Amino acid sequence: MDVQEQKPFVIGLDLGGTNSVFGIVDQRGQVLATNSIKTQAYKNVEDFVDAGIEALKPIIAKVGGLAQIKAMGIGAPNGNYYSGTIEFAPNLPWGHDGVVPLAKMFSDKLEGLPVALTNDANAAAIGEMQYGVARGMKNFIMITLGTGVGSGIVINGQVVYGCDGFAGELGHVTMVRGEEGRLCGCGRKGCLETYCSATGVARTAREFLQKSAEPSMLREINPDEITSLDVAIAAGKGDKMALEIFEFTGEMLGAACADFASFSSPEAFVFFGGLTKAGDLIMNPIKKSYEKHVMKIFNDKAKFLVSSLDDAAAAVLGASAIGWEL
Amino acid sequence: MDVQEQKPFVIGLDLGGTNSVFGIVDQRGQVLATNSIKTQAYKNVEDFVDAGIEALKPIIAKVGGLAQIKAMGIGAPNGNYYSGTIEFAPNLPWGHDGVVPLAKMFSDKLEGLPVALTNDANAAAIGEMQYGVARGMKNFIMITLGTGVGSGIVINGQVVYGCDGFAGELGHVTMVRGEEGRLCGCGRKGCLETYCSATGVARTAREFLQKSAEPSMLREINPDEITSLDVAIAAGKGDKMALEIFEFTGEMLGAACADFASFSSPEAFVFFGGLTKAGDLIMNPIKKSYEKHVMKIFNDKAKFLVSSLDDAAAAVLGASAIGWEL
Repeated sequence: MDVQEQKPFVIGLDLGGTNSVFGIVDQRGQVLATNSIKTQAYKNVEDFVDAGIEALKPIIAKVGGLAQIKAMGIGAPNGNYYSGTIEFAPNLPWGHDGVVPLAKMFSDKLEGLPVALTNDANAAAIGEMQYGVARGMKNFIMITLGTGVGSGIVINGQVVYGCDGFAGELGHVTMVRGEEGRLCGCGRKGCLETYCSATGVARTAREFLQKSAEPSMLREINPDEITSLDVAIAAGKGDKMALEIFEFTGEMLGAACADFASFSSPEAFVFFGGLTKAGDLIMNPIKKSYEKHVMKIFNDKAKFLVSSLDDAAAAVLGASAIGWEL
Repeated sequence: MDVQEQKPFVIGLDLGGTNSVFGIVDQRGQVLATNSIKTQAYKNVEDFVDAGIEALKPIIAKVGGLAQIKAMGIGAPNGNYYSGTIEFAPNLPWGHDGVVPLAKMFSDKLEGLPVALTNDANAAAIGEMQYGVARGMKNFIMITLGTGVGSGIVINGQVVYGCDGFAGELGHVTMVRGEEGRLCGCGRKGCLETYCSATGVARTAREFLQKSAEPSMLREINPDEITSLDVAIAAGKGDKMALEIFEFTGEMLGAACADFASFSSPEAFVFFGGLTKAGDLIMNPIKKSYEKHVMKIFNDKAKFLVSSLDDAAAAVLGASAIGWEL
């Protein structure tokens, strides 16, 4: 086999607010080697790219050198697929005040290797389609429940990028209109993300604890330090208030998905992220709310799935999956 | 020119709750001949199709016979593109309790002519893309403001049908959550349609008249008989309450479009229907609300357009446009 010609591997970069993880991935979705750098350690993007290239060298060498690599895919916050740029990303030290041509910068340092970039949730959707539970699906919506709520929308087998590359921001549909909506990081009020992200769930926990005197295991934790994991653990032990918090969260997510169905009528909603670790405790309230809120013609149609990809590898896999499309 | 081979015409059928209008259309979007029947006059679908075929005969003859016709497109409520059926259409005498294979029924009576069917708003979107203001656009959302609120979503140059053919029901996203939402014909509460359709605007007018004592021309009309046209006429004359009704309607539509932008980031929103006759009186409040509610990354991007197609012909043109795709 002429491996020079076949180029059996792609690079995936999961560029997160804390860590940037590089991985070399084969066509079956095996992550053969990884390395990482601290995203926040680099004040300007040139230094970040240089450090990234240094981190890549040993793992590229491990699979036989750059000649073995077909392309590189990057999943990054505020990533624009059309232009390969990161635009005004508030959580990156060098991302908040401009348009950074990151795909081109990596390509230039990797002998012109094709490099594509998209936001992390779109990357996750492509990863599920390429390697995960969405294999064979033409219409599905990926929803990532992390620090924020992200989404990747697949219609007719294609990720929806819209006219400008920024489509698929379902964490920012408005769920609570008017002044009573929670303030969102995007500057607006009542976004889905403020209720259903990990931080949103923690916020709900603090609100619930404050507004009632009901006993709960969650009272043993300093309210400012409660996480969605604490809620999941308490709910798993049958704590009534924790279960109510998940009911509230699932009600909101299910109602949002009902609106999304009116838009693209997906075959499935695929969930990914820490919150899904709670399993049925969160998935059942989502499904119940969805079936209650959705138009009758959509009842009992959409599947509600949890990502099958290994947590640690999923983001890198997702990013790498864009590479195969180049 | 071998016209037999070229087949220069398509049939469009705009199947409405009141009238069913047939038209013969050429490739430039000229409607060469039309005929119509009363939809409600036929209690079963076989009689409706037979009457339709009778109505078609003279206009088909006018353009040189069936051999000149490439295909037929039908725009109909609850039309399913995938199956060519009308499913559970509450406003059709023969549509409310089942799945009617209307495309096949017409095809069988027209010597096997290819017949496609979709809902009226999708047909309108294809019409705008083929003949109207959306020519050349790959990503736009058509919103029809009539008795109801319909939508046709175009992404990457394709109408979004979803996994089951029923995507694009944006009239039924929930704008007012909970019990205070207006009851919708779909059985749910708070749908966009209950506020922004022609009937929704009339309902707003009645509410506004009741809750304030403010003088208004609209008080000269029997509240039960107020139409959106009355509101438009009063607004055009500077009536303060009528203008407030349009502000309220535009606020709701703009906020809804802001959520739609988070989904598919369209290049344009294209509006069609009676309400658009009010021009800037309704379009300005929509745009103002959109820019206020939409995520910052989408500000000042999407165009807000009014259909350029002639009202009487638009629905037939839209329906016919599907025919060219066959």
